[in-house]
Amino acid sequence: MIPNPALLSLNTATTRKRWGLAQAIEGCARHGIRGIAPWRDLLHVMGVDAAVRAIRTHGLTVTGLCRGGMFTAADAAGRQAAIDENRRAIDEAHALDAHCLILVVGGLPGSSKDIADARMQVHDGIAAILSYARQAGIALAIEPLHPMYAADRACINSVGQALDLCDALDPHGQGGLGIAVDVYHVWWDPLLEAQISRAGKNRLYAFHICDWLVPTRDLLTDRGMMGDGVIDIARIRSWVERAGYTGFHEVEIFSALDWWERDPDEVLEVCKERHQRCC
Amino acid sequence: MIPNPALLSLNTATTRKRWGLAQAIEGCARHGIRGIAPWRDLLHVMGVDAAVRAIRTHGLTVTGLCRGGMFTAADAAGRQAAIDENRRAIDEAHALDAHCLILVVGGLPGSSKDIADARMQVHDGIAAILSYARQAGIALAIEPLHPMYAADRACINSVGQALDLCDALDPHGQGGLGIAVDVYHVWWDPLLEAQISRAGKNRLYAFHICDWLVPTRDLLTDRGMMGDGVIDIARIRSWVERAGYTGFHEVEIFSALDWWERDPDEVLEVCKERHQRCC
Repeated sequence: MIPNPALLSLNTATTRKRWGLAQAIEGCARHGIRGIAPWRDLLHVMGVDAAVRAIRTHGLTVTGLCRGGMFTAADAAGRQAAIDENRRAIDEAHALDAHCLILVVGGLPGSSKDIADARMQVHDGIAAILSYARQAGIALAIEPLHPMYAADRACINSVGQALDLCDALDPHGQGGLGIAVDVYHVWWDPLLEAQISRAGKNRLYAFHICDWLVPTRDLLTDRGMMGDGVIDIARIRSWVERAGYTGFHEVEIFSALDWWERDPDEVLEVCKERHQRCC
Repeated sequence: MIPNPALLSLNTATTRKRWGLAQAIEGCARHGIRGIAPWRDLLHVMGVDAAVRAIRTHGLTVTGLCRGGMFTAADAAGRQAAIDENRRAIDEAHALDAHCLILVVGGLPGSSKDIADARMQVHDGIAAILSYARQAGIALAIEPLHPMYAADRACINSVGQALDLCDALDPHGQGGLGIAVDVYHVWWDPLLEAQISRAGKNRLYAFHICDWLVPTRDLLTDRGMMGDGVIDIARIRSWVERAGYTGFHEVEIFSALDWWERDPDEVLEVCKERHQRCC
């Protein structure tokens, strides 16, 4: 079934080289894209109040704020600074009425080779902000990142592992803690369908789309437009929908070699077309 | 505990830019490295008979032959050609008295986006060669590759998944089918310790070492020398040893930007030193 075009959302990473947040908001409005997910650096440049006004003016939905997380640090002061920063991110997500705060949890701190310890730091970091987020009414969405980012960005690397963390921190399913499923990070996982089913509606807070290119020329900035790679996006969408997810489909493309170089108005047109044809 | 230096093995990928197989054999002998794992392209250039003679002359152990696999193809003729090629690889492994034939199983064939189907093709491909390998006395070692290679090299991407495949193809543990654990591919896996324990002595056929660099500048050819990256190699070695593995530690470094550019005699000296200090 063709996706509902009203569920398309633009993650501002997709247009970040040429558009600030104000331009991205206006671009979404101009192209009839109803959702937006700002990154915090662009948000700070625009100013939170101005962003809130512009998003309201155009009636956009904030499908997520990117990003909180980065809990791992070489010392206690660094970990506390991360917790403080996450509280500020929660405040901003609240101001934006965001559906969730995306957590990219952090990798190995300093010169550590102890990934089990890093994962425990992530557990403790989320534990330290969860009640604050609940009070603010902001859902925390742990985003498992592709294993190629385990060292330097996120040591949570599969949906199953992210759900284990949710179970540990929220054993009674009180809510407010769940996951973001980005097809780029998880498409390869042989357990994906089962783990998405396990997540269910109550722990599925975001669905991000783009594509995996062959060859991939850069580990970070060579993501593809939907349809240009090997991911069966429609199949993964069917899994999240079967699990009860009814939210937006957020396009997040890091593409230094291609899409960042194009006119963002063209990029948004292609996003809309590919969303209908390839997702 | 410091690793036994007599267990160091050289995978010829490590020196492939400057040394053919004959030079690698002589290099191992000269440096007191007791194991070698040839790649088939270098083997064919030297000739199987000449390689067998040189390896025997120097009393080296062939810790594995790289590589069989690549079972996935867009059509039946392609899949049959892969099976035929794997039988030739088994013959060569037998001639070399190799401990195992490494299977890099193949990725998505043609323009397919159906990774479940690719995985079924791998199952069927291994099923088609298993009895031939057993008759030749050659163990097949499925090597799970890092998920970043799922599309173009290997759709088996974790130790657990590889062991599930072993269970499906060899449900009674008849033997001759197991896995190769390469720290580069699996270090990030939160289930690694448990799955290595599950594998046990009977399904652990090879242990490959190198390191994950931060940053990694190329998906294929930017592996690090042991000790230069973030992998806790000694810890993973302790897990395979606890599971009963007593075999070689095979150094396999793809490094277009660094180690391939160096004098292989220097590379072997560094391998020996790092094996003692960082593994």
